[in-house]
Amino acid sequence: MNAGAKLLVRYLDELAQVTDEPGKLTRTFLSPAMRRANALVADWMRATGLATREDTTGNLIGRLESPAGPRARTLLLGSHLDTVRDAGRFDGALGVLLPIIALAELRRRKVSLPFAVEVLGFSEEEGVRFASAYLGSKGYTGQLRASDLGFADAKGFTVRSALESHHGALFTLPKPAHRKRDLLGYVEVHIEQGPVLEVKKLAVGVVTAIAGQTRAKLLFKGHAGHAGTTPMNLRRDALAGAAEFTLAAESLAKRTPGLVATVGTMSVAPGAANVIPAEAAFSLDLRHPRDAVRHHALRQLRATADRIARRRKLSFAWTTTQDNAAVTCAPALAAALTASVRTVQGCSLALPSGAGHDAVVMSALTPVAMLFVRSRAGLSHHPDEYSSPADLGVALDVLIDFIERLARTHSS
Amino acid sequence: MNAGAKLLVRYLDELAQVTDEPGKLTRTFLSPAMRRANALVADWMRATGLATREDTTGNLIGRLESPAGPRARTLLLGSHLDTVRDAGRFDGALGVLLPIIALAELRRRKVSLPFAVEVLGFSEEEGVRFASAYLGSKGYTGQLRASDLGFADAKGFTVRSALESHHGALFTLPKPAHRKRDLLGYVEVHIEQGPVLEVKKLAVGVVTAIAGQTRAKLLFKGHAGHAGTTPMNLRRDALAGAAEFTLAAESLAKRTPGLVATVGTMSVAPGAANVIPAEAAFSLDLRHPRDAVRHHALRQLRATADRIARRRKLSFAWTTTQDNAAVTCAPALAAALTASVRTVQGCSLALPSGAGHDAVVMSALTPVAMLFVRSRAGLSHHPDEYSSPADLGVALDVLIDFIERLARTHSS
Repeated sequence: MNAGAKLLVRYLDELAQVTDEPGKLTRTFLSPAMRRANALVADWMRATGLATREDTTGNLIGRLESPAGPRARTLLLGSHLDTVRDAGRFDGALGVLLPIIALAELRRRKVSLPFAVEVLGFSEEEGVRFASAYLGSKGYTGQLRASDLGFADAKGFTVRSALESHHGALFTLPKPAHRKRDLLGYVEVHIEQGPVLEVKKLAVGVVTAIAGQTRAKLLFKGHAGHAGTTPMNLRRDALAGAAEFTLAAESLAKRTPGLVATVGTMSVAPGAANVIPAEAAFSLDLRHPRDAVRHHALRQLRATADRIARRRKLSFAWTTTQDNAAVTCAPALAAALTASVRTVQGCSLALPSGAGHDAVVMSALTPVAMLFVRSRAGLSHHPDEYSSPADLGVALDVLIDFIERLARTHSS
Repeated sequence: MNAGAKLLVRYLDELAQVTDEPGKLTRTFLSPAMRRANALVADWMRATGLATREDTTGNLIGRLESPAGPRARTLLLGSHLDTVRDAGRFDGALGVLLPIIALAELRRRKVSLPFAVEVLGFSEEEGVRFASAYLGSKGYTGQLRASDLGFADAKGFTVRSALESHHGALFTLPKPAHRKRDLLGYVEVHIEQGPVLEVKKLAVGVVTAIAGQTRAKLLFKGHAGHAGTTPMNLRRDALAGAAEFTLAAESLAKRTPGLVATVGTMSVAPGAANVIPAEAAFSLDLRHPRDAVRHHALRQLRATADRIARRRKLSFAWTTTQDNAAVTCAPALAAALTASVRTVQGCSLALPSGAGHDAVVMSALTPVAMLFVRSRAGLSHHPDEYSSPADLGVALDVLIDFIERLARTHSS
């Protein structure tokens, strides 16, 4: 294991001890553990020569000025420091700690960068404490809205009150941390949270796009009836309709490259073994890196649901609860990352991200790119989440090569 | 409306007032309301010239001796007086009250019967208070077993302790109320609890058989995964497997005459919109009037489930929780009932019963037959349960005609 990867593993292990819940890893927005995490990571940043500060949204920012002076543009590298409850140690933390070590290595190599670098540790991405996610990157990019501040946590504290008691000052909606023209882009290193790299036996891959996502609540309503006395041809079975839809969604996703469709919940009423289901309520989660494909699939599935409902004499309701557009990674940044991956790993793999990331919010401010690191069994949001030291070493070498590559491009 | 039907409606309305729960109709095994119901119905029985008694299982028995003397055989007519919670007024009660009025009419007509008649009001059929159903008819037919007495109700009282405190005496397992050779058969009038008669626009129909029934708990297990990051071809989605099985069961029942198959429950774990279901647990209820058909269907469905599990890389478990053989109605009794239905209604309809009835238990002691009365929208176990006075009048005339027909047969 190279020294950088070794240090990264030590940092990840140490940061994983910083938790709000003894015995498991949990850090939520503005919690005591988040304060301690920011302090710890800030120490590591300063040891690497970065100047650190925390913005009003609780984001940790470590800045390395460029020898080219104050008019140099800035490269942003980062991810989030909050976690889900009972989390693994890689999701988020990796994308904050790895750039610190990459910059330390570049300093050791005395590489002079023609741009400034900010390493960002966002204060909130997972949406655990409040119903709203991406609070950190929204604050950094000036995308927080008054409506975001009204969400309440389990104890009744609002986002606004949590922010104001954290800083001991009235909170005003922040402006973007940078003007667009002053930025080179944002690069996020993250565990894959899926099995593609493992299946392809690759340590890292380059994200082409972050999938757009639609979530909907669906409800079929039919008629309850006695399971023994109602002939099959007189039934209006809501669950049978839901089963048909579930398979139709699966089948459409299977024959549409890149589309994933998931029915993750299913509730049946009245829900007795001897009663024909009168209601079946279920969720649909649909994602694709291209919005046009996702929207076409949505139209097809709604038509399918209508057809099922008509044929089975059911009523049908569809409530869209979430609809996020896809984010395409910036071609130039992705090409540079891909070149670095080829240099380090021999070959590269382009893959979409099915999960959302801070890069989605950052894309409103600056071009984004993402590097995925193989995660064992595609596991995430779980204490067993794991990326090997060897894979971390590859990711580190890729990021170092990428920064050097960018430096060559921008100094020439 | 004829006078008999009018009286029947009055009896049904009056009995529906006898409840353990004010504002709704609920009478459970040996409850205070059941005591009052037995007392009220016993009054009506005695007014019709029946001698009444209650057996040790709480069954109300009204007996009309035959002028032919003590060696005459006995015709049994009846149903149950207990109800589900928040019940309708017809399920059970109809089959006890209608024979009383039929016998009153026969007495008015001075018809002399060559057999004795017992009108039976069973104390328990619905299985509400204890996990075990048919306690009344099991007691009457000597089929109660020591194991039946151990079931406990919600308050911890066992069947045995309930029986002993009801009677103030030690309970001993009862012997059959009659020797088989002393009986002519058991005839039960019951609302259909299904929509067939309504669809066929007929007031009554004759039951050919009571369906055999299998209940099973099924479980598919796959693997949880991120709904956004797990490609379709790498998923092991337990709910998709369950959906496939649900449709396969429906399809098999649709193409197998007389078979009904119901998946009435469905639970998904972990059960989040963005997580691929790792487990899907659900019920199967399968019924057919012929056991061979039901058993063949069961084998087909188990094979289907195994095939689904293999193809989808799921594990699969099947637990049969109930398995009741079908009961065929006695051809001679059914033929006589059919002749009476033709006489009264013009034409008859033979239909199976998908639901279980006291006749299932009675069939161990004596030949059984059943007359179904149209129930609006097939509704039962619900306050809106309804059979029209006109239909009740038809059923009453059929039963009177049937008893007279039997009297002619047995006196000739």
